[in-house]
Amino acid sequence: MADKKMVESITSMDTDFAQWYTDVVRKAELADYSGVKGCMIIRPYGYAIWENIQKDLDRRFKELGHENVYMPLLIPESLLQKEKDHVEGFAPECAWVTVGGENELSERLCIRPTSETLFCEHFRNVIHSYRDLPKLYNQWVNVVRWEKTTRPFLRTSEFLWQEGHTMHATEEEARKETLTMLKVYEDFFLETLAIPAVVGRKTEKEKFAGAMETYTIEPMMHNGVALQGGTSHYFGDGFARAYDITFTDRDNKVKYPHQTSWGVSTRMIGAIIMAHGDDNGLILPPKVAPIQVVLIPVQMQKPGVLEKTAEVADKLRRAGIRVKLDDSDNSPGWKFSEYEMKGVPVRLELGPRDIENNSCVLVSRVSRAKTFASLDNVVSEVETMLASVQEELVHRVRENVASKTSTAANYDEFLDCAANRPGFIKAMWCGDSACEDKLKDVTGGVKSRCIPFNEEKISDVCVCCGRPAKHMVIWGRQY
Amino acid sequence: MADKKMVESITSMDTDFAQWYTDVVRKAELADYSGVKGCMIIRPYGYAIWENIQKDLDRRFKELGHENVYMPLLIPESLLQKEKDHVEGFAPECAWVTVGGENELSERLCIRPTSETLFCEHFRNVIHSYRDLPKLYNQWVNVVRWEKTTRPFLRTSEFLWQEGHTMHATEEEARKETLTMLKVYEDFFLETLAIPAVVGRKTEKEKFAGAMETYTIEPMMHNGVALQGGTSHYFGDGFARAYDITFTDRDNKVKYPHQTSWGVSTRMIGAIIMAHGDDNGLILPPKVAPIQVVLIPVQMQKPGVLEKTAEVADKLRRAGIRVKLDDSDNSPGWKFSEYEMKGVPVRLELGPRDIENNSCVLVSRVSRAKTFASLDNVVSEVETMLASVQEELVHRVRENVASKTSTAANYDEFLDCAANRPGFIKAMWCGDSACEDKLKDVTGGVKSRCIPFNEEKISDVCVCCGRPAKHMVIWGRQY
Repeated sequence: MADKKMVESITSMDTDFAQWYTDVVRKAELADYSGVKGCMIIRPYGYAIWENIQKDLDRRFKELGHENVYMPLLIPESLLQKEKDHVEGFAPECAWVTVGGENELSERLCIRPTSETLFCEHFRNVIHSYRDLPKLYNQWVNVVRWEKTTRPFLRTSEFLWQEGHTMHATEEEARKETLTMLKVYEDFFLETLAIPAVVGRKTEKEKFAGAMETYTIEPMMHNGVALQGGTSHYFGDGFARAYDITFTDRDNKVKYPHQTSWGVSTRMIGAIIMAHGDDNGLILPPKVAPIQVVLIPVQMQKPGVLEKTAEVADKLRRAGIRVKLDDSDNSPGWKFSEYEMKGVPVRLELGPRDIENNSCVLVSRVSRAKTFASLDNVVSEVETMLASVQEELVHRVRENVASKTSTAANYDEFLDCAANRPGFIKAMWCGDSACEDKLKDVTGGVKSRCIPFNEEKISDVCVCCGRPAKHMVIWGRQY
Repeated sequence: MADKKMVESITSMDTDFAQWYTDVVRKAELADYSGVKGCMIIRPYGYAIWENIQKDLDRRFKELGHENVYMPLLIPESLLQKEKDHVEGFAPECAWVTVGGENELSERLCIRPTSETLFCEHFRNVIHSYRDLPKLYNQWVNVVRWEKTTRPFLRTSEFLWQEGHTMHATEEEARKETLTMLKVYEDFFLETLAIPAVVGRKTEKEKFAGAMETYTIEPMMHNGVALQGGTSHYFGDGFARAYDITFTDRDNKVKYPHQTSWGVSTRMIGAIIMAHGDDNGLILPPKVAPIQVVLIPVQMQKPGVLEKTAEVADKLRRAGIRVKLDDSDNSPGWKFSEYEMKGVPVRLELGPRDIENNSCVLVSRVSRAKTFASLDNVVSEVETMLASVQEELVHRVRENVASKTSTAANYDEFLDCAANRPGFIKAMWCGDSACEDKLKDVTGGVKSRCIPFNEEKISDVCVCCGRPAKHMVIWGRQY
């Protein structure tokens, strides 16, 4: 880090998108590799983004009445096995503890890949009457899923997430919760991450292990590849039956409660990188940016420059804006590149001539356009530019999705899109998972992303088998 | 939970302190047992206390320039083994992952009992020059130490904590950091948890595995038993040498940096329970209480009572006070007991007669004294009572420590204190750990807590061996 005189350039997105991603993660100092295969170190700048994400989401959850709890890290194998579909889905990805202290354990313990089973064990103890419902719980924790191929933030053997787990007296209420939390994610992606995304229902084949319905938010990355951004599941009373959770209802009958779970993870940092970034590095949506405005004094040896820059920084800070003043002895040009790499939304430059004019230069990280702002209105000018960065990011993602979404009316068109047009494909589907399997095979990886809430009718028949279509599906490659 | 008409009473502290503790944890709904031996479930009320603790400490850390990061959960055995003393200290407590996915691992992985080794691995990658120093890192994570006997919050196989890890260019700076962070803990215990505590240096025998110096904060519980509340370690350059971390200093010489680490955990919730609680249950210091004021409408079926109570609740909430209005159909008497059990610092009662008088009743959880307050000044009256609860708690702990601290000038006095006077013993010590071992053996568990910063000179010789004394030590039994 020290003594570097220039910011090394990174691979261009168009040359090698995967290498560009890795370069950004490293150069923006978001994450580092660790000695354990597939486990990453989240560095201060990356973790500060995660803290801003947590703060925003946690507030949204709590406003809806959810409470945070903490369940154990370890799940006894016998507990995991009580729900058949669930264990089948997760057993291949489990990391197993077999030795504790200096003794072989009598039963091996799985590091949680997700915590439905632990929540159910606890719900069994605390739910007895309709008066104990609903239970609206969430936890912010680490989970482990043993992955073969990993990439920082996108797919790691350990990741951080929140998992909401709720129990309700009726199916109707639980189904409503499932959709409410999906909407929270949709709003959060749009309002906070500046990522408008497709939302919808997963097909039978793509559902979460043990769920009756899985809903998903599917943002598209710059290169047209989808990232499953978050999921919300309705379980019915399947787990409740498997784990023997019952309650006495108002009518004095003993019933099984209805369950949901929902989660988003540090993957979202991968989504931010790939939805917004460019060849100059990261671009952070202002609401999660650890530094919203970087102040760079120009000709800072000249009298008054540093003092004035500090004064402006202080003014912005008092207005609740997250600022950094870089008065290191690196050149202004080096600093410009460095904070572009780190995706700081707004740069403020201040030199002797600006001070004479009682103004400063503001540069948007998205458009890179310079504007002059009076120092009298610097707070509102910066706030306006932060808002416009947010808007521009949303707009750019919308444009990207629009330009990379195709419609396929039949099998040949589907193959053509899959081969030649990166992005989403809208196409009709019969409802048979055999057709999903076939389309995935012939295209080398195009899968159903979801059945969107706003289905269109493209034709009457499945693009794959020609039988009557049940749904329009959005298809795409995924991370 | 449902339909209960009365709050069951709990075991009295004097009858059975351990059972009293367990009763409070359960009845105040702080934690629950899980299916994994020694791992607890932290319930919403307990977790909300932890969140308030985190918010306060995190602010203190960041004000001193610390940054949060996230290191992996798993440590390869070979990495753990690089520092000899460290691995000897922790290996007996490790939980080992030996199977990942469906394969036996080639090297087993330890679930972090603490993360010095992982931080060192990362520091090696990011520290090259004096310009990269200091590194002031912290993380909020779960750790696992395989314990034989466990009790919720006090000793659990998994617990939550923060662990700070810092690297400095000089010994002086690192030693200063070690003491600064101990002071942060001391201030936090006093100002936030309302627990004045003894601070000092651990003896050689009681030091952290691999540390050159360990400092500790040792609050005394109501029954006179000590709880190690938090520790701060100075490592010298031992780990840096073992993990080959070097930097080029201003003088162009390659040097090893100097290291610290420091941590506090969910144990602090155990300290809150046992330092402040009474036979009516928990007593929470206002600054970490999830509910600072509970509002209980009296004769709430009478017109205007509920509306007025809601209005007062709103007024308090807008002033930034954490309130709960309990308008459930349980009796006021039941509610009084319930929120006493939960340790809510202030209770506000409001009935028709109070409304007529434009007043309300305020009851302190500590003194249980009732006062009348005008509704016009309700915010300031409540704030005053919250402040006085905080003060009273501090005062009570001070009184308890004073009344349960004895001085022993010789061996017989030491044995007499250990046998007959619960609490701390001040006594001189020669500096030889053989004397610590002997005193522990003959007293059935009295150990050196620390060498306090404010040593007194009680005599010239060690209470155990009669050789010249080096230090005054505070001795006591511990959780």
